[in-house]
Amino acid sequence: MQRYFIKNEQMNKNTITINDQDFHHIKNVMRMKTSDNVEVVNENGLVYLAEIVSFSKTEVILNIIKNINENNELKSEITIGLALARQSKHEEVLKRITELGATKFIPVEMTRSVIKFNKSFNQTRLEMIVKEASEQSKRNKLLEVSEATTLKNLLKNINEYDYLIYAYEDVKDKNIVNIKQLIKDFKNKKALILVGPEGGFTNDEVSLLNKHKFIPIGLGPRILRLETAAIYIMSIISYELEL
Amino acid sequence: MQRYFIKNEQMNKNTITINDQDFHHIKNVMRMKTSDNVEVVNENGLVYLAEIVSFSKTEVILNIIKNINENNELKSEITIGLALARQSKHEEVLKRITELGATKFIPVEMTRSVIKFNKSFNQTRLEMIVKEASEQSKRNKLLEVSEATTLKNLLKNINEYDYLIYAYEDVKDKNIVNIKQLIKDFKNKKALILVGPEGGFTNDEVSLLNKHKFIPIGLGPRILRLETAAIYIMSIISYELEL
Repeated sequence: MQRYFIKNEQMNKNTITINDQDFHHIKNVMRMKTSDNVEVVNENGLVYLAEIVSFSKTEVILNIIKNINENNELKSEITIGLALARQSKHEEVLKRITELGATKFIPVEMTRSVIKFNKSFNQTRLEMIVKEASEQSKRNKLLEVSEATTLKNLLKNINEYDYLIYAYEDVKDKNIVNIKQLIKDFKNKKALILVGPEGGFTNDEVSLLNKHKFIPIGLGPRILRLETAAIYIMSIISYELEL
Repeated sequence: MQRYFIKNEQMNKNTITINDQDFHHIKNVMRMKTSDNVEVVNENGLVYLAEIVSFSKTEVILNIIKNINENNELKSEITIGLALARQSKHEEVLKRITELGATKFIPVEMTRSVIKFNKSFNQTRLEMIVKEASEQSKRNKLLEVSEATTLKNLLKNINEYDYLIYAYEDVKDKNIVNIKQLIKDFKNKKALILVGPEGGFTNDEVSLLNKHKFIPIGLGPRILRLETAAIYIMSIISYELEL
């Protein structure tokens, strides 16, 4: 069944009002009619089965039929810090990691990032992609898309995380920690996982990350593009915690 | 270091001749000069360090310096059978699963496939994508891209596989097998893993697959798009066998 994320202010007791994009989607894309049912998720992650009761020119009114007791969220809060790349790469990663249950996405300027910090991303489009992927994959929460930042600024706000990790391309490095042992402890914890640019982290960045107690992990013998690395990480976390 | 896949016929004793796209790449994209080094991989998966000795108008000649004893191949032969989808989706999946070590890719028409069997795909472009991803990810073997087929035709050629698996979206189905127990046995084995279309396999297809002893696996509580499902599967196989 089609799912829509709404703001809490769109709910008033048993009545839900939907306008804008979602109104257009219900009316013109899905071509729904009065008495059709949809799933609605509010900002608290609560899911409701709702029935369409009427359409106006700009909005659709629904009545809540019942609360659906369902939670599809990953039992771990994973933030992916991805080296700044082209918008299309961010979009691909966002689609996939949203489906895979990530909590937050932070684009991070690193020395070898192709794209620089002050480049403006189409934030509205990124958020639309997240909303669509969240609805389609039946999530209860929307992934949070942060504004781009620099690595140095990111490191000022890492106290909230239980685990600090970076994917390191030199898998023969003796400091590499086996992620299998880490992931099993992720349940109900918060982890920040950094994925570097195509050219890898610089030695200075590696020193800085090590100083901040980031743990280096390897992702196998082949060289993965940053999109693949991010999706790989979310896949194996889901695998350990959800399968 | 830049890696190039070549045909065995391009090697003659210690001399390698490179023309066409790779010649263009070496000369105009990488802007390499005489005495620069590259890695060259032949059809047997053997890797050589080679030095550029001369350029002509249409080709570059290299001398083999030494054999590099390196094998980055996944220790399991995985074939992904993906429900026919738009070319752009095939391209995304191919890039990712090539990096992740898949052996073969078969586009399969299923009842709910958006795209039909007789649609022509740009096969040359798909093979170019595989070659580029293989070179960049440092593989020893090129993934094999099969022509599109139907599910019925595919089922006539499944004797070669040790494992027959399909990703099933109804994760509450009592027949779902936990893939964790399966993957650990994949080493040195051949597996065919089918990923269905967005609408899922039909009941008839599920019956047919079950009749042919395919094992249904689940990929977690959220609904994954077919691209994500294919990448998820290759990620977790790499995770179990390579990390």
